[in-house]
Amino acid sequence: MEVRNSPIGVFDSGLGGLTVVKQIKKLLPKENIVYFGDTARLPYGSKSNETVRKYSLEIARFLEKKGVKLIVVACNTSSSVALDLLSQEISVPVIGVVKPACKKAVSVTKSGNIGVIGTRATMNSGAYKDTISSMNSKIKVIQKECPLFVPLVEEGMTDGEIVEMVVRYYLESLRGEIDTLILGCTHYPIIKHVIAKYVDGDVRIIDSSVEVAREVHELLKREGILSKGETAREDAFYVSDFPQRFEEMAKLFTGENLKRVGKIYLE
Amino acid sequence: MEVRNSPIGVFDSGLGGLTVVKQIKKLLPKENIVYFGDTARLPYGSKSNETVRKYSLEIARFLEKKGVKLIVVACNTSSSVALDLLSQEISVPVIGVVKPACKKAVSVTKSGNIGVIGTRATMNSGAYKDTISSMNSKIKVIQKECPLFVPLVEEGMTDGEIVEMVVRYYLESLRGEIDTLILGCTHYPIIKHVIAKYVDGDVRIIDSSVEVAREVHELLKREGILSKGETAREDAFYVSDFPQRFEEMAKLFTGENLKRVGKIYLE
Repeated sequence: MEVRNSPIGVFDSGLGGLTVVKQIKKLLPKENIVYFGDTARLPYGSKSNETVRKYSLEIARFLEKKGVKLIVVACNTSSSVALDLLSQEISVPVIGVVKPACKKAVSVTKSGNIGVIGTRATMNSGAYKDTISSMNSKIKVIQKECPLFVPLVEEGMTDGEIVEMVVRYYLESLRGEIDTLILGCTHYPIIKHVIAKYVDGDVRIIDSSVEVAREVHELLKREGILSKGETAREDAFYVSDFPQRFEEMAKLFTGENLKRVGKIYLE
Repeated sequence: MEVRNSPIGVFDSGLGGLTVVKQIKKLLPKENIVYFGDTARLPYGSKSNETVRKYSLEIARFLEKKGVKLIVVACNTSSSVALDLLSQEISVPVIGVVKPACKKAVSVTKSGNIGVIGTRATMNSGAYKDTISSMNSKIKVIQKECPLFVPLVEEGMTDGEIVEMVVRYYLESLRGEIDTLILGCTHYPIIKHVIAKYVDGDVRIIDSSVEVAREVHELLKREGILSKGETAREDAFYVSDFPQRFEEMAKLFTGENLKRVGKIYLE
């Protein structure tokens, strides 16, 4: 099989990375996806860097064996702490979600004050801060960890008083201080409307899933391995566990029902 | 070594089971503990029964190898779905948290209406409902899953407007309907004061960790294997990952700093 007809591998700690799949399919409808969600071992955001690296490498090797032409690390935590390791160990190109979002934020900020929100592990890694500084050292980055956003989204609590109050609790210190806000977690696009309402219309919100899809497009074009849609294939989805409410969750992130879902133990 | 001098094994998906350790040590200060917290793979509450059973058996075998005389399954989810399997596969007695709490609740209820709160997996298992019904089929059990309580506690949000609002969100339907409420999760004792304030003083709140400590005492006495404190030993704590904020979390659940903590991969 020609490389250009190979699928794109995408992984996340759970189903949140399906927001990335959705954007890739929207921009590149001829591409096929092999997705892995580590639903048995999520969340990564509260784990040590060592554990996240170990799990990420296991998954990347699994995708490599599936013959993917490119791996997208849709998990912000993995992108922040495991990307260098994966680039060394894996034979196909590896793209994380951090850099594309930073590039976009740096290009649109006028005040030079960018906010980034994410899990505790992502924020502690300093990956967003470091990446933005390497692009433009004059930009000020204000980070804020928001550990309750993921459980709120997974509870389906995407509207109403409680989510509004939690948004205010976390983002109060950023309000009025920034003109650009990076959503540094694949779950956050689901509550983007609540965040946007609170920070008000002047703040440009950067959704990593949209930016990473653009990066995928550029890389495939540059390498000459964009699919021409010559072979009819289906996307394949693997998870390490079928969690409670699997279907509801998948629908929340993709807007549709998933076909061809398999369960894999990596150990 | 005589069996009575062997330690008691306690495990949980994370550090929440330390609330059980605290109660055992309070009631039985001469006993030694070997604790295992599966911090790399928590939470169990949103995983499938099959996965929870697999993980629980791995941990119970680890504790068995450590020479424990008894295993306490401090995790409500494991107690609900894996207790029968462990009792079959493990050579020492195994005690879960469900039965002791149910026994207490059945003995104190006057109205015959008992509320139970816990994770989604614990509630879906129906373990509390079935156990109470087997003790007294006339008692009405009202279950309510509260998936946000664990992340709130782990975020250290144990007081204030947000936790009060989430408590009201989940418990509104129970208020006035019950006279006894079982806290069916090892994290919940940490926000017991908020729950108690909301459901008002007439509701008797049953803390499983207190009840399971009593059950441990009875079993050791019955079997003649209560420690006489003849050998000086230290408690040992194992986790599958040192999560972010490990020390803060341990302190939250035990009120003190943990000594002798080791990290173990079970795979």
